[in-house]
Amino acid sequence: MYKAKAYSAGSAASPLASTTIARRDPTEHDVQIEILFCGICHSDLHSVRNEWSSVMPTVYPIVPGHEIVGRVTKVGSAVTKYKPGDLAAVGCLVDSDGTCRQCKAGLEHFCPNQVLTFNSPDKHLGGVTYGGYSDSIVVDERFVLRVPSNLPLAGAAPLLCAGITTYSPMRHWGITRGKKVGVVGLGGLGHMGVKFAHALGANVVVFTTSPGKREDALRLGADEVVISRNADEMKKHAGSFDFILDAVSAEHDINAYINLLGINGNITLVGAPAKPLGVSAFSLIMGRRSLSGSNIGSIAETQEMLDFCGAHNITADVEVIPIQKVNEAYERLVKSDVKYRFSIDMASLRSE
Amino acid sequence: MYKAKAYSAGSAASPLASTTIARRDPTEHDVQIEILFCGICHSDLHSVRNEWSSVMPTVYPIVPGHEIVGRVTKVGSAVTKYKPGDLAAVGCLVDSDGTCRQCKAGLEHFCPNQVLTFNSPDKHLGGVTYGGYSDSIVVDERFVLRVPSNLPLAGAAPLLCAGITTYSPMRHWGITRGKKVGVVGLGGLGHMGVKFAHALGANVVVFTTSPGKREDALRLGADEVVISRNADEMKKHAGSFDFILDAVSAEHDINAYINLLGINGNITLVGAPAKPLGVSAFSLIMGRRSLSGSNIGSIAETQEMLDFCGAHNITADVEVIPIQKVNEAYERLVKSDVKYRFSIDMASLRSE
Repeated sequence: MYKAKAYSAGSAASPLASTTIARRDPTEHDVQIEILFCGICHSDLHSVRNEWSSVMPTVYPIVPGHEIVGRVTKVGSAVTKYKPGDLAAVGCLVDSDGTCRQCKAGLEHFCPNQVLTFNSPDKHLGGVTYGGYSDSIVVDERFVLRVPSNLPLAGAAPLLCAGITTYSPMRHWGITRGKKVGVVGLGGLGHMGVKFAHALGANVVVFTTSPGKREDALRLGADEVVISRNADEMKKHAGSFDFILDAVSAEHDINAYINLLGINGNITLVGAPAKPLGVSAFSLIMGRRSLSGSNIGSIAETQEMLDFCGAHNITADVEVIPIQKVNEAYERLVKSDVKYRFSIDMASLRSE
Repeated sequence: MYKAKAYSAGSAASPLASTTIARRDPTEHDVQIEILFCGICHSDLHSVRNEWSSVMPTVYPIVPGHEIVGRVTKVGSAVTKYKPGDLAAVGCLVDSDGTCRQCKAGLEHFCPNQVLTFNSPDKHLGGVTYGGYSDSIVVDERFVLRVPSNLPLAGAAPLLCAGITTYSPMRHWGITRGKKVGVVGLGGLGHMGVKFAHALGANVVVFTTSPGKREDALRLGADEVVISRNADEMKKHAGSFDFILDAVSAEHDINAYINLLGINGNITLVGAPAKPLGVSAFSLIMGRRSLSGSNIGSIAETQEMLDFCGAHNITADVEVIPIQKVNEAYERLVKSDVKYRFSIDMASLRSE
């Protein structure tokens, strides 16, 4: 066991503050990583404030963060894929049972005994796992990912959650060259969706309520921008989409988008509005459309996504902050005041 | 043009009554069919009463019926697939444009210019098309289907709508031996769903609110029956289904069924509740589940379904009635008082 610097919150009402946490010494299968950057995901904020208490109650103190990139500092004796000095990344998962049907199929993100990067029972040290708002982390090599060397690390960090969450459904629903893809909501997730859809060769339409986002959407790779409050603009696209990525967690009229899907079209939710969505059965029945959800991806697919990003020079658009500004960043996140993801420069923690 | 006997309704409030209608003389591509049996579909009743006025307003007089089996009496000079004396069937479609992307892909049931068997503009005679509550019909051979000779015709008639509507989504979502399939609602559609899922080799679970239907469900091919009001019974199946066919048009809690789906599981609606369904985004996101709809199938798939029924001796369970009892049958249909489909013996019309 050793001591690591971190930022933690002691209760749902407390700000994040500097602290010291225990990390395990690397076991034979472990990789110890010096964390260089950690993205701020909206679920960090939900967990810190215990806003998901009904499904995932928060255990305090909490150290959030699951968009982690850094450099390997030590490896266990049985580790074969990493050596000190390598770039490495960790996403939302740090362990799974390895024996269930899902794990055997390489889908450990569906394992019923998966261990999340923070706020999950820690079988090594007891208590719960601590995430990436820290200067180091120790993770089983099965859950460590390679980072293409050409990617700037601050923008690479958000790929570990925002990236895989948007890449995975596009691969699952077969987005390829020439498909027509919509992206609803241009935030942390949505802006990654635009980049991936564009890189996959799709014809990309961004739906937004803010005319001010038009230029940025085009810069990110959109072929067209539709102001979703404009019924005429929406109507023009009726029945024409192969796939729509819905990244909006606020309440919104899902049928307006279902009706834009063509035959066999799919709309996938990656944002989770708190209230049930009112879905018209008729809209789904006509055209064999489907509405689905998606949540991160497997470790293998996360590696595939990182390699894809390396090949296409894709990273998130980030605003880099020192960890001392994390509480301020949370306030801005609530107001969607960031283009498009905060990335914490962990050098700021080491120099504290 | 010739005169055919039929039953029609003159307004949303009128009962169906005996009448005479005009049918076209067969053109070179047409098949004339003496109708032997016509199933009663719930959409006959919705159309007669103009209950779908917002999406498909009814033009009166209406002759409903799109579950038609009979015998070929005459064929046009260019007809190659049928000859007088053959058994033949007609389902929900009698024409399509043949030139759109969907038609070219063999998916004429998605053609924007499709012609429904009744209440669609009739390009030959003007007015609207007249359906199967009649002693004969004339249809382009592209929309005529072969009926396996081993099937009893009264029970074969409902295959043309109830059959294809339940068969198509099971094929689309890959139901094969060993899959776990749920069927919600044991009515005209649901009972066909049970038969198909069983014949496809699935492990079939029927969900019903009526304990009295248990025995019948098992007889039809269910391996297990769950009383959906029993929360404990429902809980036992959480996260375990590959596919659920939802054939309930009354309001119901869709999330209770979404939560029964396993990873990548799909629930397909074939009944259309009038009010929007309240769908929990979280239930879809966890496990990459999907909710979709489905409506009939292509002509090629309808033929495939009929051939499958021939090979597996599948027909609908029907109560055969004379056409003079059609209004009474409608009243009973509203109360779900039929096991499981009415089939009109058209000999009763000829002898009027």
